[in-house]
Amino acid sequence: MPRVIRVGGAQMGPLQKSDSRKVAVDRMIGLLDQARARGCRLVVFPELALTTFFPRWNMDDKREVDGCFETQMPNAATKPLFDRAKEYGIAFAFGYAEIAEENGERHHYNASILVDEAGNIIGKYRKTHLPGHSEFDPGRSFQHLEKKYFEVGNTGFRVWRFMDGIFGMCICNDRRWPETYRVMGLQGVEMVLLGFNTPSANSQRADEPRELRDFHNDLCVQAGAYQNGTWVVAIAKAGVEDGHELLGGSAIVHPSGQIIARTQTSGDELIVADCDLDDCNFYKETIFDFARHRRPEHYGLITGQTGVVRPD
Amino acid sequence: MPRVIRVGGAQMGPLQKSDSRKVAVDRMIGLLDQARARGCRLVVFPELALTTFFPRWNMDDKREVDGCFETQMPNAATKPLFDRAKEYGIAFAFGYAEIAEENGERHHYNASILVDEAGNIIGKYRKTHLPGHSEFDPGRSFQHLEKKYFEVGNTGFRVWRFMDGIFGMCICNDRRWPETYRVMGLQGVEMVLLGFNTPSANSQRADEPRELRDFHNDLCVQAGAYQNGTWVVAIAKAGVEDGHELLGGSAIVHPSGQIIARTQTSGDELIVADCDLDDCNFYKETIFDFARHRRPEHYGLITGQTGVVRPD
Repeated sequence: MPRVIRVGGAQMGPLQKSDSRKVAVDRMIGLLDQARARGCRLVVFPELALTTFFPRWNMDDKREVDGCFETQMPNAATKPLFDRAKEYGIAFAFGYAEIAEENGERHHYNASILVDEAGNIIGKYRKTHLPGHSEFDPGRSFQHLEKKYFEVGNTGFRVWRFMDGIFGMCICNDRRWPETYRVMGLQGVEMVLLGFNTPSANSQRADEPRELRDFHNDLCVQAGAYQNGTWVVAIAKAGVEDGHELLGGSAIVHPSGQIIARTQTSGDELIVADCDLDDCNFYKETIFDFARHRRPEHYGLITGQTGVVRPD
Repeated sequence: MPRVIRVGGAQMGPLQKSDSRKVAVDRMIGLLDQARARGCRLVVFPELALTTFFPRWNMDDKREVDGCFETQMPNAATKPLFDRAKEYGIAFAFGYAEIAEENGERHHYNASILVDEAGNIIGKYRKTHLPGHSEFDPGRSFQHLEKKYFEVGNTGFRVWRFMDGIFGMCICNDRRWPETYRVMGLQGVEMVLLGFNTPSANSQRADEPRELRDFHNDLCVQAGAYQNGTWVVAIAKAGVEDGHELLGGSAIVHPSGQIIARTQTSGDELIVADCDLDDCNFYKETIFDFARHRRPEHYGLITGQTGVVRPD
């Protein structure tokens, strides 16, 4: 039986700091309506889909910070999205800032969830590779305070069986790290659902061309797809948020590493592709047949140390 | 003090099965002469630079097989290359099939060596990721018997301090595996010297376009460079060997992942680039500052298992 899933990549245009959750959710529902009209069974939204990319702001007021987070999911603001998707029988994934109660303590994560066709949350991922910095940095042209607002995720890179396939999630900067895809690849992942918010300028290198940043974005997701024989659905928030432009460039990437669908705008835009999960098989069974070709006895440093240790 | 090294990438055209070592070495010396005229301090030659890519042949005669290997290095055939390079004060790297005596046993490896400006062999690497298969496969349009003729290398991915920088080596199929670059990246590698011989057709998928194979080659070396902030000098054997076309497409890749020099032919051809090792620093100190951003506690599967284990 063919395992073709029509996937919608729901890029979102900018959200301003002043925008309410309702503004975001209404737009997500608008994209969901388009996805239904085009026959999608699974829709992927960006990282931090419910708010502006707030780590660009240096906030010290705890209430202001926590106002960017969700304490439950679904909640009053997002329930209309869950209801609409359930009505349509469409599965979806999106990212948001999560406050979780764990062992009686409050934790802050950059999270994403996977919701099945019946409206059940079947998967949660918390971002592992937090980029940026933890304190205000006057040397940057703008801030990237993910290490201030979020803790490193404690979920690791799990996968979920779902819709007759194996799905994983990661978030934004995770996509630049080959370890992300490989850990999921070793669990047989067939489609990685990935949301991102990436500035179109480098806050530490003003002369870095935007074209180079687009190239880096594509390079990482394409390599991750090919080297693990998996689909990658990489969906951005785009446009100018609070004066800061985001990269956009959402894409659906085939297990060959080729981009088969790409947004053309920096606004709300749905891209659609029929993704045959069996297209993963050739790569997984030949050049990337891990069981035959990998040599973990020579990979020890990857898990044995965190940073660089140069030879004497 | 700037750490700019003028590097020559010495792509080689085809070698036929009937070609002697002298044919190969004379051509390597010709490329070395060009490199000297253009001011290179380091020259990189392909994998199996002294012979045709013999794993495409199914050979059972032990003497015929061993005739493709070298039992010492340098030897009578390669000494003129070593002598000329020493005269010029040029460092170099090349690949060859090696028979090594270890603990009283003969071992067969797909190896490469790094030779300093004074003619001393300062580094040896033995290929880790052997592609292909170990027995004649009638289902393939041509054979790729690396697993028959070679043992998995026992060196791992070391790096060497040399010419005021940190250098590593890998061979051909190693370049498709992100673990290769990462293990060297964790040792601070600044330039990876990589030789390859890659068929321009997929022996298991006749309809795979050549353009896709070129793309995969570039994708892997570019991602490996960017994700570790290192130069990669990826040098092919090219052209038609014994009726089988090789991919070619040798390139010198900047730590940004961008290709800054590329061969234009499928013959002997030298490409040259001034490689500033300090161009690695920005990547290693910001987005790929491993000590700040990596999370080995979530990478356990990478060293904990070889093949895929799917969830229940």
